[in-house]
Amino acid sequence: MKTLRDIGENELLRQLLPRLPQQSGTVTGPGDDCAVLRLPGTSQDLLLTTDPVIEHQHFTPDTPPRLIGRKAIARAISDIAAMGGVPKWLLVNLVAPADSPLSRVRQIQNGLIQAAKTWRLGILGGDTAEGNSLELHTTAIGLIPRGTAILRSGARPRDIIYVTGSLGASWHQGNRHHLTFQPRLKAGQFLAKHRYATSMIDLSDGLATDLTRLLDASTCGAHVHADAIPISPAARKTDAPLEHALSDGEDFELLFTVSLRKVRRFEAAWHQCFPRLPATRIGEILSDPRRRQLLHPNAPPAPLHPTGFQHFSPPAP
Amino acid sequence: MKTLRDIGENELLRQLLPRLPQQSGTVTGPGDDCAVLRLPGTSQDLLLTTDPVIEHQHFTPDTPPRLIGRKAIARAISDIAAMGGVPKWLLVNLVAPADSPLSRVRQIQNGLIQAAKTWRLGILGGDTAEGNSLELHTTAIGLIPRGTAILRSGARPRDIIYVTGSLGASWHQGNRHHLTFQPRLKAGQFLAKHRYATSMIDLSDGLATDLTRLLDASTCGAHVHADAIPISPAARKTDAPLEHALSDGEDFELLFTVSLRKVRRFEAAWHQCFPRLPATRIGEILSDPRRRQLLHPNAPPAPLHPTGFQHFSPPAP
Repeated sequence: MKTLRDIGENELLRQLLPRLPQQSGTVTGPGDDCAVLRLPGTSQDLLLTTDPVIEHQHFTPDTPPRLIGRKAIARAISDIAAMGGVPKWLLVNLVAPADSPLSRVRQIQNGLIQAAKTWRLGILGGDTAEGNSLELHTTAIGLIPRGTAILRSGARPRDIIYVTGSLGASWHQGNRHHLTFQPRLKAGQFLAKHRYATSMIDLSDGLATDLTRLLDASTCGAHVHADAIPISPAARKTDAPLEHALSDGEDFELLFTVSLRKVRRFEAAWHQCFPRLPATRIGEILSDPRRRQLLHPNAPPAPLHPTGFQHFSPPAP
Repeated sequence: MKTLRDIGENELLRQLLPRLPQQSGTVTGPGDDCAVLRLPGTSQDLLLTTDPVIEHQHFTPDTPPRLIGRKAIARAISDIAAMGGVPKWLLVNLVAPADSPLSRVRQIQNGLIQAAKTWRLGILGGDTAEGNSLELHTTAIGLIPRGTAILRSGARPRDIIYVTGSLGASWHQGNRHHLTFQPRLKAGQFLAKHRYATSMIDLSDGLATDLTRLLDASTCGAHVHADAIPISPAARKTDAPLEHALSDGEDFELLFTVSLRKVRRFEAAWHQCFPRLPATRIGEILSDPRRRQLLHPNAPPAPLHPTGFQHFSPPAP
């Protein structure tokens, strides 16, 4: 009997997405970081996304409970950052076993409330239910000026590929980046407001996987320069820094493309606005969607595969 | 060590709700069936709600998978019915063990898609993740003309209390009402459009519990006439029909109040519009919030307690 493990998350979604019914008012449906809705009469589009945070998948029994609450919000609003929007409201479902220590649940709630205050979000409600494991499901609602959301599908041949911050080992050996990361809200809003980015995605499942998603959505290929990829200090301490930077999930940095003719202006403005957050050129978009290569300075090009995390499947070889 | 079981869902929420931060644009925050949001420039308010459907809580391993998908949507849009709104869009998170049979997951997805088509809903996206049990988390987004959403808090002394359909035994001995119920969308919209209802809630956790919630939100008391409560055919077959009608969850009927001066007009219009769906008078709203009584024709009045289902706690005695 075939199970979810046999096909994995990516294939499950690939088969499902085209079948989902749509309704008027939907500017962008499933398959991007957020859906985009437009109501008549407004100057703002609505951004909607939902994200689960599950024990043993996204945190462990010894994760400080406040950081579980924080992560449940940070993950969801990172998707709004990836469209260039401003997160405004949340709905949060809590699932927990009945024998969960009350103090742990209260600390998770405190983490949610503190994070909502930090990012100026209203918590509109949600639900609580008994279940086998501890989970938070966060729906985030954001706003963005009409028609300015940055999609995954906008990359064009010759665009330059950038990534913010540095990548890899978010979970490695006690690294808490996956709990303490800063969603790149201001960076995403800057890229949307000035229309610098032609496409964008946040790195939740690893550069190789998420770049593949962006290229698939844009029907393009890419060259990525291995020696240009910014590797996190934690990944540098491992035996395979580049592999960690390419394949580890939960960096929550932004991956985006900028049209060649805007690159100079973009880079100057970026350095002015974000003097302490690097935006690193790592490659170029190509017109042939089958050409996706990792270029090494002293080795032949290697094909770029989605080697990052996907649910239901064992890690790729 | 105190656990969730020691305080139960109601107390957990009672303590949490006042602490949740709010943001501008929120017309109604947490604590009603839906949150209500208002964007500048629109003639429609947004309704938002999120609901979990979890194996062993909301369905069993032998529930037909298509009906699991249907229920995940029907539960969420019942909350929109309870505000008088029109459901439009959904986001759905799927959590499943990696060894879930693919055919079961596909049938659940088919149930979701079929239900979305039936109720003319767009599925905007969601997420999939690995977890210990099978769960669907549905966020529903609806629309309603500005300022016309019916809240739980609007009941006033002397209002008449009504309930649609018949109540009880939704889960009893193979009854599938909890899987096949019709969310009362048209009824809710009728009540909002003509401003007949002063308050409304959908019956998800039993009449006694949900009426208590409505009375708490309205700061009122009530008399309920035991012999007026419409008892479902399934509950009539049990040893304790009235107890089932009062305490069983997942009826998904509407409980609402109508101002005394509109009762005659309301009843005439209702019969015209819904000749096959009864709306039954079951009691009256009282001004004293401590006076909540169940009146029996041949017995002394009994206090009305929230005896219905709540998560994390054993059933009330």
